[in-house]
Amino acid sequence: MAQSLPSIPGIRLASVPAQIKNWQRDDLLLIEIAEGASVSATFTQNAFCAAPVLVAREHIRQGQIRALLINAGNANAATGERGLQDARKCCEGVAAALDIESRQVLPFSTGVIGEHLPVQKILDGIPGAAAALDGNGWDSASRAIMTTDTRPKTASRTVEIDGETITIAGIAKGAGMIQPNMATMLAYVATDATIVQPLLDELVKQAVAESFNRISVDGDTSTNDACVLIASGASGKALDDASSAQFQLMKAAIVEVHIELAQAIVRDGEGATKFVTVQVDNAASREEALAVAFEIGESPLVKTALYASDPNWGRLVMAVGNAGIRDLDTSKVSIYLDDVQIVDAGGRADGYTEHAGQNVFEQSDFTIRVDLQRGDACEHIWTCDFSHEYVTINAEYRT
Amino acid sequence: MAQSLPSIPGIRLASVPAQIKNWQRDDLLLIEIAEGASVSATFTQNAFCAAPVLVAREHIRQGQIRALLINAGNANAATGERGLQDARKCCEGVAAALDIESRQVLPFSTGVIGEHLPVQKILDGIPGAAAALDGNGWDSASRAIMTTDTRPKTASRTVEIDGETITIAGIAKGAGMIQPNMATMLAYVATDATIVQPLLDELVKQAVAESFNRISVDGDTSTNDACVLIASGASGKALDDASSAQFQLMKAAIVEVHIELAQAIVRDGEGATKFVTVQVDNAASREEALAVAFEIGESPLVKTALYASDPNWGRLVMAVGNAGIRDLDTSKVSIYLDDVQIVDAGGRADGYTEHAGQNVFEQSDFTIRVDLQRGDACEHIWTCDFSHEYVTINAEYRT
Repeated sequence: MAQSLPSIPGIRLASVPAQIKNWQRDDLLLIEIAEGASVSATFTQNAFCAAPVLVAREHIRQGQIRALLINAGNANAATGERGLQDARKCCEGVAAALDIESRQVLPFSTGVIGEHLPVQKILDGIPGAAAALDGNGWDSASRAIMTTDTRPKTASRTVEIDGETITIAGIAKGAGMIQPNMATMLAYVATDATIVQPLLDELVKQAVAESFNRISVDGDTSTNDACVLIASGASGKALDDASSAQFQLMKAAIVEVHIELAQAIVRDGEGATKFVTVQVDNAASREEALAVAFEIGESPLVKTALYASDPNWGRLVMAVGNAGIRDLDTSKVSIYLDDVQIVDAGGRADGYTEHAGQNVFEQSDFTIRVDLQRGDACEHIWTCDFSHEYVTINAEYRT
Repeated sequence: MAQSLPSIPGIRLASVPAQIKNWQRDDLLLIEIAEGASVSATFTQNAFCAAPVLVAREHIRQGQIRALLINAGNANAATGERGLQDARKCCEGVAAALDIESRQVLPFSTGVIGEHLPVQKILDGIPGAAAALDGNGWDSASRAIMTTDTRPKTASRTVEIDGETITIAGIAKGAGMIQPNMATMLAYVATDATIVQPLLDELVKQAVAESFNRISVDGDTSTNDACVLIASGASGKALDDASSAQFQLMKAAIVEVHIELAQAIVRDGEGATKFVTVQVDNAASREEALAVAFEIGESPLVKTALYASDPNWGRLVMAVGNAGIRDLDTSKVSIYLDDVQIVDAGGRADGYTEHAGQNVFEQSDFTIRVDLQRGDACEHIWTCDFSHEYVTINAEYRT
């Protein structure tokens, strides 16, 4: 269930129905940001990044961002030169409505790839959105950006810093094409804290590394992903010392919001019936730990076994063996399903029973833990199962 | 339909039911090789390689291989020290029955991972198999090694060299966990030609690179894969000059047998309804071309679109963009479905119609061709679609 998000001083939102697809719902979201706010973002690593991503990257480099425009239903990706023009026209529409400059607007699109954006519908929707801007628009915003999501994704925190309350609110969308390096995933997190630009730039990278870059639904990375972090500066004194206890306190809360949103995406993974944490302990490096975790979390054979509640540990060792660790001593590998040891010294653990493993796998939320005994690096990711419903959703998406 | 394979002088085979699983079919295959034959093999790259793979690697290094023993139903993988002992016991059983040394036997297992091999059942089956050895045993051999395969996979060729006929016969099994670097894939190819060991070693590597390492069913690599090439030397003069026309003629036929077997595995991919060639042209390097081809061929979103006969070209460009080419100029990328151009200059091709794309995608066998316009390297792979049946097969495999 989506919680009701608090308003963030300095941020106003409005969602309107622009009929980008043949539906009645809100599908266009406008976010207005107070003057003087800091805005940072991370974008997809896909070489075929979408037109709005190219335009947003260009605009954010110039600073002084005052508005975000997000549409669902059409990704404006692989649309060539016209796609870029379309994204720019949308920015101009927002600039005219809010009396700001076009370069102060960041455009975002999510939906079908390879079809031209219905620009006129979007331009027609902007004035109504501009007129409806409201600090309490977060909940409807979280619904307006949905595509194959079955539910909106929201998270919030408050922290007390030097007697002042700082509020953080975030929304995200995404259910398929989820993989590290950003996915068909859009996330917008805002706080009323004052955070100087260089620290905010660092903070969004760290928060994404700990959250959206540790989830996997199907191993595909989309053309349109973006995560935006806004510090409106409407409350609180400037946090300009990254080593201070105050900054660390706020950072922890911001990272928590990102993690909660990322986990919500996995829980709503296309067709997902299970939420599984893959924890890899005692690897030689963090990279190695993550490689093993993703090999397990992205293996179709593991994911179908999760779906079937079948503790097929052979598929788990297969995946560990495929992670590319050339000098892996398999006789040191242990694997646990929650607290049930299933693999010991590279083979089936003494005393392990199918019944005990099955009991863990039948839960909707559990942990697969691999101990490599090679070093002291630990990492974890979150994944989901691969179900009939995933095939149905993705075989019928455009029809 | 499996063709009836010719006998290969110097090779005798026998299949028997050893009841390794609770089934009535033949599940144990013994292959006897004439003295003086050359035998080469390639094995899985999975770090958790199975006990029989470790033993076979050790034995083949010593040369003079005289027999292969293959069981279906149990992979003897992730079975620790006992697994190694079990594989050695099987070799000893064959050695006793055929009056050869244990190190002259290569053991192979395929089936469920992580359960101990029912060694006594295998030992009980060996004498009957040894008594039944026959040059015409290829067809029943192709059935005895099946696991989730729905049909046996066989291929053969004959070539005339200097007035003499050389025959090549091969069998393979595998339907899931199929990916480069060998998969749950076993293949045995034999010829009566005489090929010296160093040339045969090179030949098996090249043949596997052109065939089994270019197919993908689900992106997983198994613990047990192996491909064995046998030159019995029972006919033909020694082929010891790799640059000779005779050698090239024979090599081409051997590679063709490997490709036919590899393609048969994709066609029988778990739940597969389509056979798709992914061709990448004008890449900067062969590695780059293969990376793009596999990114397309392994993307769950592309594979579900194939299943749905939905020419969702957005997913194709998404996959091209994910192949890790950092300096890709997307405005030069073209994509064709057979001879229908769907993407031009990185966007939807002028004149492309959904109807034309759909007509290609509705076929059971077609080609997706990507032109990168970056260089002159070309590569191709073969893949299949991702269906409901794949999920069903893999969610119910052990039950």
